[in-house]
Amino acid sequence: MNRQKLIEEIRRKKSFLCIGLDVDKTKIPPHLLEEEDPVFAFNKALIDATHHLAVAYKPNTAFYEAYGLEGWKSLERTIIYLNEKYPEVFTIADAKRGDIGNTSGRYAEAFFKDLNFDSVTVAPYMGSDSIEPFLAFENKFAIMLALTSNKGGLDFQVTQDDSGEALYEKVLRTSLGWTNSDRLMYVVGATRPEYFKRIRRIVPEHFLLVPGVGAQGGSLEEVCQYGLNSDVGLLINSSRGIIYASANRDFALKSAEKAEELQMEMAAILTGGGLLS
Amino acid sequence: MNRQKLIEEIRRKKSFLCIGLDVDKTKIPPHLLEEEDPVFAFNKALIDATHHLAVAYKPNTAFYEAYGLEGWKSLERTIIYLNEKYPEVFTIADAKRGDIGNTSGRYAEAFFKDLNFDSVTVAPYMGSDSIEPFLAFENKFAIMLALTSNKGGLDFQVTQDDSGEALYEKVLRTSLGWTNSDRLMYVVGATRPEYFKRIRRIVPEHFLLVPGVGAQGGSLEEVCQYGLNSDVGLLINSSRGIIYASANRDFALKSAEKAEELQMEMAAILTGGGLLS
Repeated sequence: MNRQKLIEEIRRKKSFLCIGLDVDKTKIPPHLLEEEDPVFAFNKALIDATHHLAVAYKPNTAFYEAYGLEGWKSLERTIIYLNEKYPEVFTIADAKRGDIGNTSGRYAEAFFKDLNFDSVTVAPYMGSDSIEPFLAFENKFAIMLALTSNKGGLDFQVTQDDSGEALYEKVLRTSLGWTNSDRLMYVVGATRPEYFKRIRRIVPEHFLLVPGVGAQGGSLEEVCQYGLNSDVGLLINSSRGIIYASANRDFALKSAEKAEELQMEMAAILTGGGLLS
Repeated sequence: MNRQKLIEEIRRKKSFLCIGLDVDKTKIPPHLLEEEDPVFAFNKALIDATHHLAVAYKPNTAFYEAYGLEGWKSLERTIIYLNEKYPEVFTIADAKRGDIGNTSGRYAEAFFKDLNFDSVTVAPYMGSDSIEPFLAFENKFAIMLALTSNKGGLDFQVTQDDSGEALYEKVLRTSLGWTNSDRLMYVVGATRPEYFKRIRRIVPEHFLLVPGVGAQGGSLEEVCQYGLNSDVGLLINSSRGIIYASANRDFALKSAEKAEELQMEMAAILTGGGLLS
């Protein structure tokens, strides 16, 4: 999917919601465990119930790999279903990959060719040649970790160099010089809204994927205050707050209600900011 | 596997060689493509031919994921074969994973429980709670990226903070304070031997996994000069230099010859350093 199409979808749905499909079999409605592929059955019902409210879906690969071959099958079924039935949604493999150049190229093939995701999250520690292989694919995006919302995110990401620049700022700034850097997006945690102002100074145009709204405690309004740009430029992810809204047979409906609450907040923000045309 | 057993194996085989199973179907002997699972057939033959020369095997997951479900099956078959037939070898899933705490826990389950590897490589950018879930498993190891051998490794890893400490040094030093830090090892590229002295000042005891000898241009002798400790403390990886020694039917034999060249160099170094008892 290209950037323009993503922006059009955001305006059409009045939503920049991403739903995180981090599926744990111990938390899904028990009746689904009788299905041949419970994780896919759960995802399918969720997607069908929320596709008009969300512009993106983000399965985190850890939850699938934990189930081995069976999990990888569920992931494959999920992305095939999304691509066939809802080609208008933006898909994110939350995999946080990164390796030396030729090896990163194999990861890019895995997620962009074999599975056909629109984007994959990547880790910056190994630098330019670990990310550029992902940027070689047209209409695909690498979403690079910049500032994460977990406790350990502060261990290294905010360390300042001798010029006073924090590591996450250096990561952002440096990446702008990489080949096809317009195919980058960045992960910025919602629990650090005070940083969005600085981040937007470095990357005013790029999309930011923002986890941590809801279960992890971030505020949508605070994030939008500094994070929005004229193309909206934000994808706000919610996982647990939406997908585990109910463990009963009505789970998909309850999830859609939670998604709609966020979508309506987003519609109000977009309207208020004059961002819908 | 525990640390003591690994050290015993190193002394018994007079080798600290790790063989990287980074299998590309376009590079393996063509006759194997007729097999039901060419990648596993290749790995099996290689392992059978080299298991007395190497103490560790390291499949890089990128090469398996690139083949989708089929690739994940080859990876699973390979680790099952290693665990059943050669339980004395140390196994490394070179996956460079890392995510927020509960999600890293799922990766740890994937590699330590489902696949039953002895260790997995991890990326430090997200800090303590992205690594500690891997360290919660007894007799398992997380091998964290410190200083990598690729060009982009210099983008961020050697950036100095205002006290003059480089990021890779901070990563090493900080990680020593994490819960179960004795279950850490570190990735240090062979193409930067001048850094081993500094690294050994911070982590004198831990094992270092050293890729980049051979195809990537690093020198075994230089690495050993500063990297060895009294428990040996090094695992030197070679992938392409060994596994693609020949594309003919004699490939496993040729790979074993290449492995033996390295093993003999290692034996001489261990003997010379008085490290065999």
